[in-house]
Amino acid sequence: MTSEWDYVSIASKIFKSTLIAGAGEDDCAVVKADKYVVMTADSLRESTDFPPQIEEWEKGFLSLAVNLSDIAAMGAEPKYFLYTITLRRGYSLKNFEQFCVGIKNLADKYGVIVAGGDTDIGEEMAVSGFAVGFADRVLLRRNAKPGEKVFLTGELGKAQLTLEQVLSGVDRNNSAYPEKLYTPEPRIREGLKLSEFASSCTDVSDSLAISLYNISSASNVKIELKLPDLSYLTEFVDEKKALELFLYSGGDYELVYTSDEGDIEIGRVVEGRGVFLNGRKVERRGYTHF
Amino acid sequence: MTSEWDYVSIASKIFKSTLIAGAGEDDCAVVKADKYVVMTADSLRESTDFPPQIEEWEKGFLSLAVNLSDIAAMGAEPKYFLYTITLRRGYSLKNFEQFCVGIKNLADKYGVIVAGGDTDIGEEMAVSGFAVGFADRVLLRRNAKPGEKVFLTGELGKAQLTLEQVLSGVDRNNSAYPEKLYTPEPRIREGLKLSEFASSCTDVSDSLAISLYNISSASNVKIELKLPDLSYLTEFVDEKKALELFLYSGGDYELVYTSDEGDIEIGRVVEGRGVFLNGRKVERRGYTHF
Repeated sequence: MTSEWDYVSIASKIFKSTLIAGAGEDDCAVVKADKYVVMTADSLRESTDFPPQIEEWEKGFLSLAVNLSDIAAMGAEPKYFLYTITLRRGYSLKNFEQFCVGIKNLADKYGVIVAGGDTDIGEEMAVSGFAVGFADRVLLRRNAKPGEKVFLTGELGKAQLTLEQVLSGVDRNNSAYPEKLYTPEPRIREGLKLSEFASSCTDVSDSLAISLYNISSASNVKIELKLPDLSYLTEFVDEKKALELFLYSGGDYELVYTSDEGDIEIGRVVEGRGVFLNGRKVERRGYTHF
Repeated sequence: MTSEWDYVSIASKIFKSTLIAGAGEDDCAVVKADKYVVMTADSLRESTDFPPQIEEWEKGFLSLAVNLSDIAAMGAEPKYFLYTITLRRGYSLKNFEQFCVGIKNLADKYGVIVAGGDTDIGEEMAVSGFAVGFADRVLLRRNAKPGEKVFLTGELGKAQLTLEQVLSGVDRNNSAYPEKLYTPEPRIREGLKLSEFASSCTDVSDSLAISLYNISSASNVKIELKLPDLSYLTEFVDEKKALELFLYSGGDYELVYTSDEGDIEIGRVVEGRGVFLNGRKVERRGYTHF
């Protein structure tokens, strides 16, 4: 029978690093550091967070990506990743290897070291990730100022649009934006660039509405939205649905930030509170795990 | 219906801190640091890791304690803790509050800041913890040297003995060592003291046998055990069972270390490989989640 040590052994080989003590080598991973340290924890579970038709390596990719997205939103450089994983009984070593490779490839792309992991067995596959990054300056939610504009690093709604397609039976190869659903790119490089000039920033993991309310509350400001071009959505759905996807869906992992200049402009910061679109209050809702 | 935000709100209140950005306030927690950074991840789940008759606050305590034990084993000072938690549908806010209080009380005792958390819902309660600590010198497993002695910070086997009692129906108030099972004290202070003079160290989480094999392999040494006084076990079980508990059971979270001087002496380090007791090879086994 496959034992815990078989899994640990695969993970140790794939995540081999040059830390003072690395994954599985000692009680803790050990590094040396200065600067700001940013830390985040995020978890995914099979039944609610892994879309249909997902490949094993993509589960690893996603588990790291959601944590790197939080690091990116701070304008920090990610350095270390640790995870705990619950596997279903009988989960094959080959699948686990693919899962690890998915983490490893994304980690390598951004210079992230997988510094530790813990494996156990349960009813459902679930992964908890923990990422550590460093920054000279951090992008907090609380620094938005009236007079600034609001920007996005990329288009929103694509992940949810694609999810609804595959949930309705569409083959992923024929879906609208499969790469946004299965392998969303964490905006690390964009976040690092933003750290030089943006005032406030957060990632859009649950929904744009929730992210903007978070900035609005933390900064004590009002945000007035104006819609960008949504033709990448209206190509597939009507305008009402496109607006719903843009405002209230999650999973794209783009960054939203306030600044004087930026990428996709979607509004402005003014005195007051709340988030508004054409004078109407935007609802504070989005994707939650519940 | 109870929403994710209700839980987040409780946790944020209990874990309120003075970080640059604290739990739930931004995408990541933010701190400033220098020295060695040690990081560890460990998870617990209800069906395999929480003993019968456990109270809600003790689940929180245990979730932090197992991670702090790893930090202690490095001779480091724990500073930050992040967690992800899966709750059963209908898990009450009152229970969750008790869970958080259990974390918070232990965290406060050792000056640990709860820097973040992530909550979702699943079939079974499970907690993944991530701890970060700092050290001027770290206690690795690889530095044991022939000529040293082997020591423990405390007595082993008590947690498993007590677990077997409550599993067989004994009330926890009448069990042998309930505090070792439900609220094992992480050996933070002992680890910090050891960092000044010990050569190698690890915690005994899975079993003494596994911990000693880890030191033996990492240091390329042989360990010859001699049994300490086990009357705290033979008071309840026969000598054979006491030996089994001492060598192969986990959950006590004591530290085992090599040095010239120390607390409870249990053997010595010599040239060679492996772990031996009275000339016979000790088996490499212990508690695993599987």
